[in-house]
Amino acid sequence: MADPITFYFDFSSPYGYLMSEKIDDLAARYGRKVRWRPILLGIIFQSTGSAPLTLQAPPKAAYYKHDFARSARFLGVPFRFPSKFPLPTQQAARAYLWLHEQDCVQARAFAHATYRALFVDDRDISGPDTVLDIAAGLGVDRQALAAALGGPELKERLKAEVGTAMAAGVFGSPTVVVDGEMFFGADRLPQLERWLAEGGF
Amino acid sequence: MADPITFYFDFSSPYGYLMSEKIDDLAARYGRKVRWRPILLGIIFQSTGSAPLTLQAPPKAAYYKHDFARSARFLGVPFRFPSKFPLPTQQAARAYLWLHEQDCVQARAFAHATYRALFVDDRDISGPDTVLDIAAGLGVDRQALAAALGGPELKERLKAEVGTAMAAGVFGSPTVVVDGEMFFGADRLPQLERWLAEGGF
Repeated sequence: MADPITFYFDFSSPYGYLMSEKIDDLAARYGRKVRWRPILLGIIFQSTGSAPLTLQAPPKAAYYKHDFARSARFLGVPFRFPSKFPLPTQQAARAYLWLHEQDCVQARAFAHATYRALFVDDRDISGPDTVLDIAAGLGVDRQALAAALGGPELKERLKAEVGTAMAAGVFGSPTVVVDGEMFFGADRLPQLERWLAEGGF
Repeated sequence: MADPITFYFDFSSPYGYLMSEKIDDLAARYGRKVRWRPILLGIIFQSTGSAPLTLQAPPKAAYYKHDFARSARFLGVPFRFPSKFPLPTQQAARAYLWLHEQDCVQARAFAHATYRALFVDDRDISGPDTVLDIAAGLGVDRQALAAALGGPELKERLKAEVGTAMAAGVFGSPTVVVDGEMFFGADRLPQLERWLAEGGF
């Protein structure tokens, strides 16, 4: 079986959410698995001097707010722009890392549920309570996760994950890497598909 | 016949070049004409606080330099990254406006020839001499164009065109507007096609 592909995402990234709804099925069609890697755009943007699209100059911010919803319709993915945006995603990312160590299937379910909580149900996923609620709803031991989220270890692990992503050249979300080839943005799905089908072009 | 669509482009924009090779055929398949509108990203970026992709943080700049060529291969368009980049495009844009007043078919041919001079043949299109050479090669009266490029009128017209584009919300190149709906980037070609086919989605 060919190597898994890597999907870097921030839980507050609208295009990351769109990619999250497509990447596993796309990969599966070409016999690939996907490694999901949560990142924090806050840290990455500090290093690159960038900012969220909705905080860019007014015409650009307005365009992207419109395009998030249009791209979601184009891809057939339900989407509602959140009331609170952008928002911190450390808790969600740390919970993902912890869950992934216990049960990678449950971690994937948590990632989907968290993205949909934010971009479909307009829930504020920034605080630990909502993250714990989402995880508990999937059968996760709430107290164990709460204890882990409160500890220093997960914090360090997430920081290291973001560092690894940046060292690999990741500067935004979503970023997908196939056999060393990097694709940035949900709008690169057609290129990604051809790359998987043809092994390059 | 449905309204023409509008294509805003800067002659130094790699994704603008890719769009320029696709937009007329795409529009024609849906019974549409295309209005080409040269803009100057230098002026627009001053207003939005933006910068060319190749002058962004190193990982982002490196990604886009790679993506220009990959996107060109994906779309089947010949492409070579220019030795001099970015570069001023006022002369080319002014020449386009002047030609368009005389003969819109010749203006279109000039736009294609100028984009290909930069992104296929690696010619420096920033100075008036190269612009005049390209135009003369298409049968344009070189002296008449040279006189127009030296005058104040074209300068003002281009400034006004850029102002009109900015007032319409244009913040980058390429931007295509169909029936009031704006699409930014060559990677929006699939959405643009569906919009033309279905009248929205």
